Amino acid sequence: MSVSLSDVQGALERIKGYIHRTPLEQHLSLNEVSGAKLWFKSENKQKCGAFKARGAHHALTKLTPEQLTRGVATHSSGNHGAALALAARRFGAQAFVVMPSNAPTPKRIATEAYGATVIGCEPTLAAREAALNACVERTGAVFIPPYDHPDIIAGQGTLALEMLEQNPNLDIILVPVGGGGMLAGVSLVVKSLRPDIKVIGVEPAGADDAKRSFVTGQRVTHYQPDTIADGLRTTLGALNFALIRDYTDDIVTVTDAQIIAAMKLYMTRAKALVEPSGIVGLAAVLADPDRFAEQHVGIVISGGNVDLEHPVWL
Amino acid sequence: MSVSLSDVQGALERIKGYIHRTPLEQHLSLNEVSGAKLWFKSENKQKCGAFKARGAHHALTKLTPEQLTRGVATHSSGNHGAALALAARRFGAQAFVVMPSNAPTPKRIATEAYGATVIGCEPTLAAREAALNACVERTGAVFIPPYDHPDIIAGQGTLALEMLEQNPNLDIILVPVGGGGMLAGVSLVVKSLRPDIKVIGVEPAGADDAKRSFVTGQRVTHYQPDTIADGLRTTLGALNFALIRDYTDDIVTVTDAQIIAAMKLYMTRAKALVEPSGIVGLAAVLADPDRFAEQHVGIVISGGNVDLEHPVWL
Repeated sequence: MSVSLSDVQGALERIKGYIHRTPLEQHLSLNEVSGAKLWFKSENKQKCGAFKARGAHHALTKLTPEQLTRGVATHSSGNHGAALALAARRFGAQAFVVMPSNAPTPKRIATEAYGATVIGCEPTLAAREAALNACVERTGAVFIPPYDHPDIIAGQGTLALEMLEQNPNLDIILVPVGGGGMLAGVSLVVKSLRPDIKVIGVEPAGADDAKRSFVTGQRVTHYQPDTIADGLRTTLGALNFALIRDYTDDIVTVTDAQIIAAMKLYMTRAKALVEPSGIVGLAAVLADPDRFAEQHVGIVISGGNVDLEHPVWL
Repeated sequence: MSVSLSDVQGALERIKGYIHRTPLEQHLSLNEVSGAKLWFKSENKQKCGAFKARGAHHALTKLTPEQLTRGVATHSSGNHGAALALAARRFGAQAFVVMPSNAPTPKRIATEAYGATVIGCEPTLAAREAALNACVERTGAVFIPPYDHPDIIAGQGTLALEMLEQNPNLDIILVPVGGGGMLAGVSLVVKSLRPDIKVIGVEPAGADDAKRSFVTGQRVTHYQPDTIADGLRTTLGALNFALIRDYTDDIVTVTDAQIIAAMKLYMTRAKALVEPSGIVGLAAVLADPDRFAEQHVGIVISGGNVDLEHPVWL
């Protein structure tokens, strides 16, 4: 079971009536600060405020009416849960979302507001999986994984199809990596269509399982993440890792302090909200300016669901 | 000395190479919440993060080379100062900006970053004017008023020309009012071109000099503002008042609590930053939903220069 370019192209056809084609934006003062030519793919302006809307809607377009009747379930630190809840509402299905206790409150509220049933659990992968299994057994709902699934990867990859159309002159694309759904999909698309463009994953230093997996060739499956980037505390998926190993050029890490500095800079200059997980690409550019100087760098701003009541930058 | 529609049309021609034509945006979930059809004129995405870039650039296009050599000066609670500093840099002029001690730090920093000399003063109109007069006397710089001047009013009015083009089907336009530069310019444009569209000024209850002036027909020239909306603590200008009396349909007030609630709602849903002064229009809609139900309401989001280190919503 893998994913091909045509799967991603098909996914875009299936979902484009449900999601936004988000803009690829320039913020000239950030070019001045960084010394690079930055092109921000603003998935913070996507439905639900995150790229996760792509994969979730795509997965639901693949379900049969019988499956939709049973409902859908997932575990999620936030954005995938909200996206699945929204998609389920669009398709008339009930959604169940297992969320760890450390998921940001606004993400839980959004998930509930879209009509999903939220089930709390401890913030470990084991607890998430146990709660999910219990839920599926009880309800018969179809499990829609947050990242380790071909339909999710193909859905997330659609943003790269848009980026290549919006600016065919990119040199590098920087992609946040948590479970690896977006990085796998984007890498597959870019290397299939434009192998000359470098695709680099970026993850927090305190959740560097993808980096270590990439370097050693062995997927890290157990670790305890320690980062403010709540969306990137997940463990790299198996299918995701296989695609990343084949198609991604490099993975780099940034510290939480670099994430916060980049968040404040972006919000101040772009006048847009970004969540910690969403800004790691800009943090990577600012951390290593020589590597990106004068390059046309695509930066995926993966989401904008900030907890305004508890600003991580204070 | 007054302002005509053709002055505003001329201003747009003069400044359009220097400023952004900001988008008129919809955020569907805010339509759901409000029951109205909202069209946000996003001047938070303007150069300097505020509509003030329009008037400042326009004023500088009117100066002679000799005047530019002498430099420009103003007093400002923030955005006009930063806008003047930016415009001065574009025209090769030195800028001097008198700023009250309670101006938000980021606005002072932005003003200095654009190369202006910032002069601090007490937060009263008298102190601002005294410091400005001393500066002009010392430097010979040309005073560019923050709002009470035909070129400034014509510059700010340009955003209404764009709005009427971007959506000719508006029923109402809501405009923040502090000194009244934007409200005067917008009212003039709208009533000249589309007298059927209502123009309503919105100001904080704790800085309601425009409302009181409008109701009594006598301009309030002395009062002590008390509001978190730092950009609206100014006193209504004389020329501004004359135009507002002639062309504005109504002025309403909102409380600081309503401003904060609207700020949080907008930032969460639109994923964009807005400063307290910039969100009074949405606050007015939420405060009186029956008045705006089902109407196409243009809301000027006047600026996005938030102090992230001191969030007013916490």
